[in-house]
Amino acid sequence: MKTFKIASIPGDGIGKEVVPAANEVLKTIADIHGGLKFEFTDFPWSCEYYLAHGKMMPENALEQLTDFDSIFLGAVGNLKLVPDHISLWGMLIKIRREFEQVINIRPAKVLKGIRSPLLNPKDFDLIVVRENSEGEYSSVGGNIYKGQDEIAIQNAIFSRKATERAMRFAFELASKRKKHVTSATKSNGIYYSMPFWDSVFEDVSKDYPGIQTDSQHIDALAAFFVTRPHQFDVIVASNLFGDILTDLGAGIMGSVGIAPAANINVNGKYPSMFEPVHGSAPDIVGKGIANPIGQIWTAKMMLDHFGEEELGGMLLDVVESVTNDSILTPDVGGNYTTEEVTNEIIKRLKIVEKQGV
Amino acid sequence: MKTFKIASIPGDGIGKEVVPAANEVLKTIADIHGGLKFEFTDFPWSCEYYLAHGKMMPENALEQLTDFDSIFLGAVGNLKLVPDHISLWGMLIKIRREFEQVINIRPAKVLKGIRSPLLNPKDFDLIVVRENSEGEYSSVGGNIYKGQDEIAIQNAIFSRKATERAMRFAFELASKRKKHVTSATKSNGIYYSMPFWDSVFEDVSKDYPGIQTDSQHIDALAAFFVTRPHQFDVIVASNLFGDILTDLGAGIMGSVGIAPAANINVNGKYPSMFEPVHGSAPDIVGKGIANPIGQIWTAKMMLDHFGEEELGGMLLDVVESVTNDSILTPDVGGNYTTEEVTNEIIKRLKIVEKQGV
Ligand SMILES: CC(C)[C@H](C(=O)O)[C@@H](O)C(=O)O
Ligand SMILES: CC(C)[C@H](C(=O)O)[C@@H](O)C(=O)O
Repeated sequence: MKTFKIASIPGDGIGKEVVPAANEVLKTIADIHGGLKFEFTDFPWSCEYYLAHGKMMPENALEQLTDFDSIFLGAVGNLKLVPDHISLWGMLIKIRREFEQVINIRPAKVLKGIRSPLLNPKDFDLIVVRENSEGEYSSVGGNIYKGQDEIAIQNAIFSRKATERAMRFAFELASKRKKHVTSATKSNGIYYSMPFWDSVFEDVSKDYPGIQTDSQHIDALAAFFVTRPHQFDVIVASNLFGDILTDLGAGIMGSVGIAPAANINVNGKYPSMFEPVHGSAPDIVGKGIANPIGQIWTAKMMLDHFGEEELGGMLLDVVESVTNDSILTPDVGGNYTTEEVTNEIIKRLKIVEKQGV
Repeated sequence: MKTFKIASIPGDGIGKEVVPAANEVLKTIADIHGGLKFEFTDFPWSCEYYLAHGKMMPENALEQLTDFDSIFLGAVGNLKLVPDHISLWGMLIKIRREFEQVINIRPAKVLKGIRSPLLNPKDFDLIVVRENSEGEYSSVGGNIYKGQDEIAIQNAIFSRKATERAMRFAFELASKRKKHVTSATKSNGIYYSMPFWDSVFEDVSKDYPGIQTDSQHIDALAAFFVTRPHQFDVIVASNLFGDILTDLGAGIMGSVGIAPAANINVNGKYPSMFEPVHGSAPDIVGKGIANPIGQIWTAKMMLDHFGEEELGGMLLDVVESVTNDSILTPDVGGNYTTEEVTNEIIKRLKIVEKQGV
């Protein structure tokens, strides 16, 4: 029996609705498979936890998490309770950093039955590889003076090591796909970091003569996500640019509620973390209408990461058969609940099982 | 006779095609009006100029420009000749900075007859007010170490003065429009500058009780440009976020070739500069198919700035009547040339004149 130990952290808001849903789906898959087991351990860390304990997670949180095979996270953040930079840096970004989850992978592709807000989305199918450890998200800087003279200085730190690592990851991924890597840059406006980014990209691309490359400024690239997303394969981006492009990717897919993501630890020292692109969505909390597909597709990425690509592929096929039959939550134009969509996915997984995987 | 002295800088690429076109349009408007005159002085500063002179503009360029009523710029940049950060910081960004053009205004709205790539663009009509003097575009930082250990450090500088100035500009503008200001932030990820940005926004908004406000993280906001752009009125953004949002705005309008912009000097010490959102577009240079509408709509913003809002309004109406009749360049699905579109606009301006402005 192959056993995977999963640290399940629903977090805030709809995280508490979609993580349990996705866990049910994973349990069904284990049952179908027979030789596979997922052991879930729940952690209540969240903004509510912060209110009770004065911190987002206990001191030894990372110790508690370190022996798991992966972390399955819902969403973090509740502005009503805790300022965002405190909740996020105290949990999501902390785990990404300390567990050296240096790469964030986020696919964006057309899912059958989900209407894109684009007139002609063609069949876009791209993946953003986001540098996940440094860049614009650096807690380096500070403020000087008070009142009218106040100045905030924010440092963005770009190391060759991290930049190159993200780019090599993108090239390796592209070599298994359409063999094209686009670099998201802004070297015409951002004076030091982005010309550096470009030069690393040029160096790394020399090691991959079989991969086509291009560089696009982030402003133009954002517009291309609207005008011709089907022309991209793998895009490598800094922490901030990757963040923006992937929400945009979710936007053109039809809803941020369906977009998956994985924070990958590449050196094998710590668990990777799987969390969808969407946030805690305070506006729809408690209504039972959160789209579970982002979290479930994220579970598929976790299965892939465990080496269970076949099961991962089957799961996404089943999800797509459900969307294709218009069994949809309100964010994508339906009026089904979280539970109904989840149950339909579970039902069809069981049918697929009977027909033989 | 009211005379406006305009420094005309076609710059690179299609700038050399669309600036002359827009200048013709402006001359026609002056003729129609009778009591108005535009005096154009051409400056050849560009990447080609750089090759010949080792700099983008002569030492005394700003002195030469300072007495003009405005600067009318095409596009800057030609990667084949000069690295972008050298050409842009040597000219476009230099003029913005030294002439204290601290605000960049960029409208995005549906133009009749121009198909948006969105399935359902509704009638969005928004304006991005971009902080244009500092932020992520700061030449502060540098590199340390060579080779594998290299690190680039990029500083973003946010002063209360500049931040507040951009925000007040946005609130004033909104008070003449739909009375709503959205702040583009990323305070959940960017540790120092964006929480500071939020706190200034909170302070400034207290002075405008009649204006509704909201704050959106740039990732979500980018996606909202695709999913619900009609719900925005005025958006205030940092230099980089404004840059990204406005290309995206151009994208949802149907083409970067039609999007206008103005770099505004607010203290009256130096001329403002009018330049469209698009770049030099090396891929279509010399084909005669560049869309002149971005530059012409930019001319409309210059007319507004001169206090000639009535003429500005008339010009945009005429442009829209031309697009509505599908007299379009290839970027927006037509097969007319730059010249044909420009001539049609000029022809109709003359007809409007006969009917009385
Ligand atoms: C060319 C570049 C430096 C410039 C900018 O980013 O400001 C352009 O994209 C713009 O928006 O005017
Ligand atoms: C919540 C926020 C800090 C986070 C990020 O920007 O990384 C989120 O937007 C994401 O993309 O996972």
